[in-house]
Amino acid sequence: MYLEKINGPQDIKSFNEEQRKALAQEMREAMLKRASVHGGHFGPDFGIVECVIALHTVFDSPKDKFVFDISHQAYPHKMLTGRKDAYLYAEHYDDVSGYTNPEESEHDMFNVGHTSTSISLATGLAKARDLKGDKENIIAVIGDGSMSGGEALEGLDTAGEMDSNLIIVFNDNDQSIAEVHGGMYKGFRELRETKGQSERNLFKAMGLEYRFVEAGNDTEALIAAFSEVKDIDHPVVIHIVTQKGKGYKLAEENKEDWHWHMPFDIETGEARQEMVDPYAEQTAATFLRLAREDEKFIAISAATPSSMGLTQERRRALGKHYLDVGIAEEQAVAMASGLARNGAHPVFGDFSSFFQRTYDQLSQDVCVNNNPATFLVFWASMYGMNDVTHLGFYDIPMMSNIPNLVYLAPTSPEEYQAMLDWAIPQEKYPVAIRVPHAMVGSSKRPVRESYDELNKYEVVKDGSHVAIIGLGNFYNLAEETAAKLKEQGIEATLINPLFITGQDKELLEKLKANHELVVTLEDGVLDGGFGEKIARFYSADKMKVLNFGLSKNFYDRYDYEALAKENHLTAAQVAEDILANL
Amino acid sequence: MYLEKINGPQDIKSFNEEQRKALAQEMREAMLKRASVHGGHFGPDFGIVECVIALHTVFDSPKDKFVFDISHQAYPHKMLTGRKDAYLYAEHYDDVSGYTNPEESEHDMFNVGHTSTSISLATGLAKARDLKGDKENIIAVIGDGSMSGGEALEGLDTAGEMDSNLIIVFNDNDQSIAEVHGGMYKGFRELRETKGQSERNLFKAMGLEYRFVEAGNDTEALIAAFSEVKDIDHPVVIHIVTQKGKGYKLAEENKEDWHWHMPFDIETGEARQEMVDPYAEQTAATFLRLAREDEKFIAISAATPSSMGLTQERRRALGKHYLDVGIAEEQAVAMASGLARNGAHPVFGDFSSFFQRTYDQLSQDVCVNNNPATFLVFWASMYGMNDVTHLGFYDIPMMSNIPNLVYLAPTSPEEYQAMLDWAIPQEKYPVAIRVPHAMVGSSKRPVRESYDELNKYEVVKDGSHVAIIGLGNFYNLAEETAAKLKEQGIEATLINPLFITGQDKELLEKLKANHELVVTLEDGVLDGGFGEKIARFYSADKMKVLNFGLSKNFYDRYDYEALAKENHLTAAQVAEDILANL
Repeated sequence: MYLEKINGPQDIKSFNEEQRKALAQEMREAMLKRASVHGGHFGPDFGIVECVIALHTVFDSPKDKFVFDISHQAYPHKMLTGRKDAYLYAEHYDDVSGYTNPEESEHDMFNVGHTSTSISLATGLAKARDLKGDKENIIAVIGDGSMSGGEALEGLDTAGEMDSNLIIVFNDNDQSIAEVHGGMYKGFRELRETKGQSERNLFKAMGLEYRFVEAGNDTEALIAAFSEVKDIDHPVVIHIVTQKGKGYKLAEENKEDWHWHMPFDIETGEARQEMVDPYAEQTAATFLRLAREDEKFIAISAATPSSMGLTQERRRALGKHYLDVGIAEEQAVAMASGLARNGAHPVFGDFSSFFQRTYDQLSQDVCVNNNPATFLVFWASMYGMNDVTHLGFYDIPMMSNIPNLVYLAPTSPEEYQAMLDWAIPQEKYPVAIRVPHAMVGSSKRPVRESYDELNKYEVVKDGSHVAIIGLGNFYNLAEETAAKLKEQGIEATLINPLFITGQDKELLEKLKANHELVVTLEDGVLDGGFGEKIARFYSADKMKVLNFGLSKNFYDRYDYEALAKENHLTAAQVAEDILANL
Repeated sequence: MYLEKINGPQDIKSFNEEQRKALAQEMREAMLKRASVHGGHFGPDFGIVECVIALHTVFDSPKDKFVFDISHQAYPHKMLTGRKDAYLYAEHYDDVSGYTNPEESEHDMFNVGHTSTSISLATGLAKARDLKGDKENIIAVIGDGSMSGGEALEGLDTAGEMDSNLIIVFNDNDQSIAEVHGGMYKGFRELRETKGQSERNLFKAMGLEYRFVEAGNDTEALIAAFSEVKDIDHPVVIHIVTQKGKGYKLAEENKEDWHWHMPFDIETGEARQEMVDPYAEQTAATFLRLAREDEKFIAISAATPSSMGLTQERRRALGKHYLDVGIAEEQAVAMASGLARNGAHPVFGDFSSFFQRTYDQLSQDVCVNNNPATFLVFWASMYGMNDVTHLGFYDIPMMSNIPNLVYLAPTSPEEYQAMLDWAIPQEKYPVAIRVPHAMVGSSKRPVRESYDELNKYEVVKDGSHVAIIGLGNFYNLAEETAAKLKEQGIEATLINPLFITGQDKELLEKLKANHELVVTLEDGVLDGGFGEKIARFYSADKMKVLNFGLSKNFYDRYDYEALAKENHLTAAQVAEDILANL
């Protein structure tokens, strides 16, 4: 057993070939066992074990600095840099995050969870080194799936003009999260087939020196290649060919399902629990219907079809009504604008955190032009991904303050359906829908069919003294709170605002007659959010307003209940705060 | 005279070579005369006259659809599509915007003012055409300066996988706004030198067919090339070599100064008025000093060095302390994060509207990692660029709600200097500074040296009843308003908040003792802005709050005074509203 004794990269430097082979085997076994119990990213890490062993054999971290793109490939790196326990012993599985993390180790340069950033960050590290007159190696490790992102391409372009040490390891396994998409992948395929000789060479086109290593899962070949470029005095790209999921047959065969995986049975590969988002399923079902009914319909993904429930089979069924642009969110949004401008009915869906890539495209390409594309924002909720790099609840300040955008917040699957059915065929407004999180259940309330009357809120129940405006996911919290108030003899007015992007001035004005307190509840950050618009509306009036939501903070791997309590987001807390203000 | 008789593209279709030459000459003369009186974009339009004549000769707009990247090259297009009067007659110069504009003409597909969007938008038009079973040509026209932007590169990648008509005209004049930067330009140079034969070929690397036309200012060569690809059944790139500023010697010789130009004397080229932003000058002076004093200092530009007052001479003087990444704002921000992480003191400055490209990089690359880079946001003001595509006052909702970012709002050159001197060398916080607009003058008030005590506002004058919080550019408006209130016997408290990103809770709490109204003034949009944070703070108290700022809207080519009045932003209006609420 080697792995148990590795406390840092120095412990593997003198290994021989056999020992490295054995180590790689041990690392895969540990990752497999951990993944089967704990879940997490799988394929990317299994493919890069040999590469990481070779990197830590040749380079001297932390003096030499690694930047792992999106960190999906960082598990092996963590195992060799003092964090093996988190992969060997179940009781330590949660000691580490799923991403590189400077708070964990001096061997990690950045906390990275979005793709396509490694080259840009590395150019900065390299330039700072030069300013200080230092001499270390700077190494960016980036997978082919990440290369389609604009930030990575801008980074390559800048790297191509630099004139000092910078090593870009391009880990090519011919796979993104799903299959790769984009013309550059033709080039990569040709480079693999010609052992690096094809003229379709993105890296040379960007002004960079280029080297090819076919045996990307052979530690010895990699050590030789990395040794050649160590301390090189200019930027260089090393294109290595690896196998995603290597070492676990099921993952080798079905790369998409094993990019990330829930806990599973090692023998059969069967997940120990199903994770089905009913809203993703509903979205996929709607798309399949629209593909039959509306020749102008088209669904766009930026490499995350699963966000919309689009399995490989369903994508095939959608045919020409489905398009994956790869990891390229800016392209997805701008293309949607072009589609809408020429009369199509485009829908682009993605996880909330990745819409952060598209502010300018939403504003300029779509909303300045008022082109009627539809955007589905998934997991914009505190009850979603809880890694600091994937927080979904900053969408409201970012998106809702862009003019012309109609940002809708459904409160149930029925309302989500009505909004989908209205938004996609209409040709008047750019529309975004904040898709409810998976636990938001059915409602028996009738739902509005058309949302053409902008910023018209729905009064679900007339009451007095207190009006509770429960936005989207938190409409249920409004109902629960109202029930608690009723126990105290207060019949609160209940409002489902539907629209995040504006004030229903007429209704808000009317509330003044028999209410003294308006409460807003939103499943998002307070700063720049929905509640503040209501607070502003009443700011010079006698009406009191209480805004409930999250305070602005980069929460990391938080406990949902604890976060809710900390921010006074339980019905009991809200009711208590209301009573204290009456 | 031909131009006077051209009312649409059909009027030039039967022209012969001589007529086209004469037309090109007339178009340049008209543009020169107009620019000398009116100012505007210059070099890009002068270089592309022949190309536009050829495009409208070969293709059938509006059935065939053109997308001009950033529209800097759109003047000749406008002249040939029914808008010649705006270039021929002084009284009509203002009839058209500086960008393509669907409200002006059916020949314009989008209102575009940010770079690098044309290919993405064109892929959308093309895909919509295919869904509908239509057959028109889709043509994107993009300059080499725009090609470094992530959105353009993502667009190329998607185009490289498409399988129907899409024609990308790559207008290569070897110049961005300033000189070009990035490794891809080595490739473009080699392509020019080898007449398209070099192996450094970005377009082929992206999976695209590639054609080269050396004579990019020869209408006949272009007509031949375009005729060959008309109705082509797959995407193709036509690389044409043109001369920026062609036809006006001064512009040919100094491409940077003549990218955009103020009105000037045609004989001498001398500008009729100087446009100097004192804050840009101050920024440049600070940089030149830091380059001598701080080896870790580095200024970054994304192709807009003029925003920071960095003339060609000053850039040379900065030496290794200056870096231009080209039009690549994501790269600029992420690289700044890498620089800060490795101990440098990076500053990235740009126009406010272009920071919209960097939301995710600010959030993930910089702020999640809390890396102490400095960002200078220029012309974040209603008194800035007033084209709808360049509005600078949406920065506060976008940036100020990102955790960890310290967004400062100086109120004078002295305070701006203090903030620069504090922000750049400190190594604790990511800091952005909202640089005042040019008309914000000196103040005799002493300024704080350190801004380490976050969210600590400055009480400039103690008063009672009314407290006026004047943010950044609008602090002066707060003073003027206070003067008007004094005439009515009211001594208002005057507050300079300094920090956009948080509430000074202690101070706000204290104000309750002897104030009944708090007023916020901000030179930005109200939705998601600074004032709403104050409204939220007091929302459940007796304290009244009035928020002044712009209502959310895509204003276009507005009159500053009229917009101020419309939004109640004159001192008289603010004072009146205050009095009505006491």
